[in-house]
Amino acid sequence: MKKIRAAIVGYGNIGQYVLDAILSSPDFEVAGIVRRDPNNVPDELKKYPVVKAVKELKDVEVAILCTPTRSVEEYAKECLAAGINTVDSYDIHGGIVVLRKSLDTVAKANNTVSIISAGWDPGTDSMVRSMFEFMAPKGITYTNFGPGMSMGHTVAVKAIKGVKAALSMTIPVGTGIHRRMVYIEVEDGHNFADVAAAIKADDYFAHDETHVMQVECVDNLKDMGHGVNMVRKGVSGDTQNQLLDFNMKINNPALTAQVLVASARATLKQKPGAYTMIEVPIIDYIYGDKEALIKKLV
Amino acid sequence: MKKIRAAIVGYGNIGQYVLDAILSSPDFEVAGIVRRDPNNVPDELKKYPVVKAVKELKDVEVAILCTPTRSVEEYAKECLAAGINTVDSYDIHGGIVVLRKSLDTVAKANNTVSIISAGWDPGTDSMVRSMFEFMAPKGITYTNFGPGMSMGHTVAVKAIKGVKAALSMTIPVGTGIHRRMVYIEVEDGHNFADVAAAIKADDYFAHDETHVMQVECVDNLKDMGHGVNMVRKGVSGDTQNQLLDFNMKINNPALTAQVLVASARATLKQKPGAYTMIEVPIIDYIYGDKEALIKKLV
Repeated sequence: MKKIRAAIVGYGNIGQYVLDAILSSPDFEVAGIVRRDPNNVPDELKKYPVVKAVKELKDVEVAILCTPTRSVEEYAKECLAAGINTVDSYDIHGGIVVLRKSLDTVAKANNTVSIISAGWDPGTDSMVRSMFEFMAPKGITYTNFGPGMSMGHTVAVKAIKGVKAALSMTIPVGTGIHRRMVYIEVEDGHNFADVAAAIKADDYFAHDETHVMQVECVDNLKDMGHGVNMVRKGVSGDTQNQLLDFNMKINNPALTAQVLVASARATLKQKPGAYTMIEVPIIDYIYGDKEALIKKLV
Repeated sequence: MKKIRAAIVGYGNIGQYVLDAILSSPDFEVAGIVRRDPNNVPDELKKYPVVKAVKELKDVEVAILCTPTRSVEEYAKECLAAGINTVDSYDIHGGIVVLRKSLDTVAKANNTVSIISAGWDPGTDSMVRSMFEFMAPKGITYTNFGPGMSMGHTVAVKAIKGVKAALSMTIPVGTGIHRRMVYIEVEDGHNFADVAAAIKADDYFAHDETHVMQVECVDNLKDMGHGVNMVRKGVSGDTQNQLLDFNMKINNPALTAQVLVASARATLKQKPGAYTMIEVPIIDYIYGDKEALIKKLV
């Protein structure tokens, strides 16, 4: 069987889990890894080409972008223009429509495919939300995140003066409302109460119930577990009280990486253009023979 | 806006809920109803054409088949050959691949589209099962049905000598195992203990924990509520213990009907051929502008 040759672009937390996911997928092989510093080659990468630009790799069919969200557009365009499909887990909800349009143009011009925002939210959660929408078209869906670490909020806390180290946990309190539990180490010469007040006044936290706690070692509190509960009470036809509910408790980067690899597989089955996950048939994400999958899963 | 003209083929329990779902969908209109006896016209159908064959209706774009499962293939082929798309909720899991192949040929020859097995299981459950599969490719998914009425088992009980009326409820006991709770009225001249023993010996029940109870009036026990719990514990990449869980508690025919109407909408966006629900992009099932849906749901 000819395997799908995938490049990992960016080798941080997500990139490392993507390597795991590729190695456990029977239809994939590693074409190489793209890093800012190609001389930084940890043991597990010694058998692969590690390069500075994707064009230095041979026969790449799809690039799995594991860069920060704000670099996705630039790297995606470079790959698509070079005839390489892309997937990313771009996670700024407000920017998805614009990114899709921008990559769609480049993809179509270069006969390539991009699947964007392929993580869990946006990503698989979006798929479930969309299913809920057609199963019970009237109603409200609440997406409740966590408990789990919020990367965005943690970065926001770290930016506040007097914070030496920080962790912001997202705690679901139902109906899409979240409590923020913030754990910090305070820099010498700063007062905890003042720092805590500054955090609570920050726009990231001012609108949510926020508790700030001082700890000896933030690093000891970190775990990569996360979760979601999506719940909808809605109407099918004119029948009320249809109750739909989706839950997961997962290792966050491991799931994101697995979804990226599944989406990389799906890029090879789409017509040129850029897609969100809800625009791609579910079966295209799965490894295996089509009729065998239908027999097993439908 | 030009509306989608849909015919309801069969006007039993599901057909009636399909009428509700069509009337509550802004993009649909009723082209007419096909019944075995077109003179049987209840009040709510008085304003629509009620006919014996779909060809008697004008400009039908899609036929929503609400016939018994075993008649689906025949009716679908007739419609597809007449240039009309079809949807059905064919629910014999073992026959789906064969039905798909058979309708695919007719659909392609007549430039039409069929979406088959578009209910909740098979149907939306199949979509969730398939998502679980690519989110955590190694692991076990358990589908736990109920509590709710099993049509197939109820029919099986009714076929047993001495049973005057019956209801078989499916009760989930976890890990895909189900208990059967059977409620019967016994015909005069028959002994309850003998009838109960015959039910438990029947192949439909012999392999499950089955309890048979005699009641005064089976009809008083019937409700159309049903549910499912699908749970998977699996592996993403090489990360264990990824926990995925989907639950619903729903009016059974109302959800089936809503899924049929959503699938009818989706037929108009596919290339000629026959599809299961996992082969169709989720967004195609939803009413609304594509970019607006992406903005709202992704």
